[in-house]
Amino acid sequence: MKIAVDAMGGDYAPQAVVEGAVQAAREYGVGIILVGIQETVEAELRKHPVAASLPIEIRNATQVVDMLDSPATVFRRKKDSSIRVANDLVKSGEAVAVISAGHTGAAMAASLFTLGPIEGVERPAIAVLMPTVRGTSLVLDMGANVDCKPIHLLQFAVMGDVFVKHLLKNPNPRVGLLSIGEEETKGNELTKEAFKLLTETSLNFIGNIEGRDVMMGKADVIVCDGFIGNVVLKTAEGVAGAISAILRENVGDNLMRKAGYLLMRPAFQALKTKMDYAEYGGAPLLGINGISIISHGRSSAHAIKNAIRVAMESSKSDVNRHIHHDIVQNMEMGKAK
Amino acid sequence: MKIAVDAMGGDYAPQAVVEGAVQAAREYGVGIILVGIQETVEAELRKHPVAASLPIEIRNATQVVDMLDSPATVFRRKKDSSIRVANDLVKSGEAVAVISAGHTGAAMAASLFTLGPIEGVERPAIAVLMPTVRGTSLVLDMGANVDCKPIHLLQFAVMGDVFVKHLLKNPNPRVGLLSIGEEETKGNELTKEAFKLLTETSLNFIGNIEGRDVMMGKADVIVCDGFIGNVVLKTAEGVAGAISAILRENVGDNLMRKAGYLLMRPAFQALKTKMDYAEYGGAPLLGINGISIISHGRSSAHAIKNAIRVAMESSKSDVNRHIHHDIVQNMEMGKAK
Repeated sequence: MKIAVDAMGGDYAPQAVVEGAVQAAREYGVGIILVGIQETVEAELRKHPVAASLPIEIRNATQVVDMLDSPATVFRRKKDSSIRVANDLVKSGEAVAVISAGHTGAAMAASLFTLGPIEGVERPAIAVLMPTVRGTSLVLDMGANVDCKPIHLLQFAVMGDVFVKHLLKNPNPRVGLLSIGEEETKGNELTKEAFKLLTETSLNFIGNIEGRDVMMGKADVIVCDGFIGNVVLKTAEGVAGAISAILRENVGDNLMRKAGYLLMRPAFQALKTKMDYAEYGGAPLLGINGISIISHGRSSAHAIKNAIRVAMESSKSDVNRHIHHDIVQNMEMGKAK
Repeated sequence: MKIAVDAMGGDYAPQAVVEGAVQAAREYGVGIILVGIQETVEAELRKHPVAASLPIEIRNATQVVDMLDSPATVFRRKKDSSIRVANDLVKSGEAVAVISAGHTGAAMAASLFTLGPIEGVERPAIAVLMPTVRGTSLVLDMGANVDCKPIHLLQFAVMGDVFVKHLLKNPNPRVGLLSIGEEETKGNELTKEAFKLLTETSLNFIGNIEGRDVMMGKADVIVCDGFIGNVVLKTAEGVAGAISAILRENVGDNLMRKAGYLLMRPAFQALKTKMDYAEYGGAPLLGINGISIISHGRSSAHAIKNAIRVAMESSKSDVNRHIHHDIVQNMEMGKAK
């Protein structure tokens, strides 16, 4: 099994990406194809002498994606960019998965257009694991589809259910629909229609959940359109950041409070680890023919290593076959009604 | 100036409501009409001997709104409920404002239908003051309108701008549109259209802002549809709660960490005060003929007192006249283009 890694993508690329790939190859024995400007990647790889004995190869890609490029530009004009070449490796079967921490829109577009959707899937979706009080919840869509129809939310639910079942080994994921009240009658036009569709599936649909439930671990899979998902994820990040900033300001130069902070530090550290996206590796783009993990732009080596692990596990557990099966089954159930 | 207060609405009604009303009457010298079941309210008021010398009166309302009532039921069948009678007092001119911490949907419906929209306003909106790192931001709509058109978002922006200008005394509020990227091209169909409309106004429109900016104080007025607004507000509440729960769990029985917590307590207390909705009183329903403040169900006496203050200030600063003026002006600017 080989995994294609976009060595040029991410705020700390190529250093952090190459380091994470080396860690993954060593730890999991997985084959890695680092895609990027040959010389740059080679130079980076030489910093890790252990790499010589690991199953790591380099594939040259002469173009680099700029954060200001539009996804369409990347797809049409930058055919020899690392993100496109990495996706081509999956298309040709040389690699089973692609990982990129670069331009999110470009990474998504490259995977969507190069690999295409799984038969039956109308809209692939980005799924993000969010930390909760109890563990994690998978939230999707996180931005691939900003305007959705009810059927899309239904399909997100099915794909999320498969991921949580087969990768997180939760045999009966609770699926919640993000809305503005628990009752079936609460929501907007989209969620009220989606609610009806979800009750007709084989999923363990627990109904609407509210914003305040997201981090409480009330559902294992949380379904919403990509606009809401993106706003919710970023709001959660922002609130955590704001709380930390307000606390810092109120501790300030006060010696007693500083001493208190030092004593409490292990608790803050545990919180930080829990809230750290790097632990969860990256967000899979579910519903495409292949495996594509979209990593955070600020990905550390640790995050890249974890993204590679998620890609490996996705491949081993045959997530896409299950998605195809469950999508077809649930679409037929819908028609039968 | 008299303010009608729904004495029966809220999780801690009538106690907290009556206590808050007494505090407001004493502190601000404002006239209060407590609306509710005469005997119950009288009994509650007798607990505050000072009330006898304050401008507080009671208006009997024989029905009580149940949290399970639909807003339509309340409006059609519970005509003698405290929330309806309190709104009637504004309609007749006996009171300038109504405050309720009861059933949000019912309170909103009662104000919308009894008082009606200001001429030119298509959709009144609930505006919530959210704490930020720097101060507060006014977010609207918070749930009155779950499916919006671009023109509605434009009108929310105008109303929010008026409120921040005249009540918070900020002469040039920065107006942001909640979306999923800073660029004009980012967003869903609704926000992309609204973006165009907002650039054509006299507002200090700073463009799109993202979820992570909400609590960073990047904008003074944050505009979004009521579905998004509700999800964002509740997500922010939930994240704050989750962080506190995770910290508590990690402090646990560890004596050192507990000691640290005690030393840091003033900083946590400052954070708690900042995040406490009670400080901001309640959410005005902007755009109706009259003043209606929707308070949190869990409102304390302190929250009710602050809601009464917001109502007084709204009346004194003639918010509705300014809303009418600015809405008409901006609609004409739009037509002229």
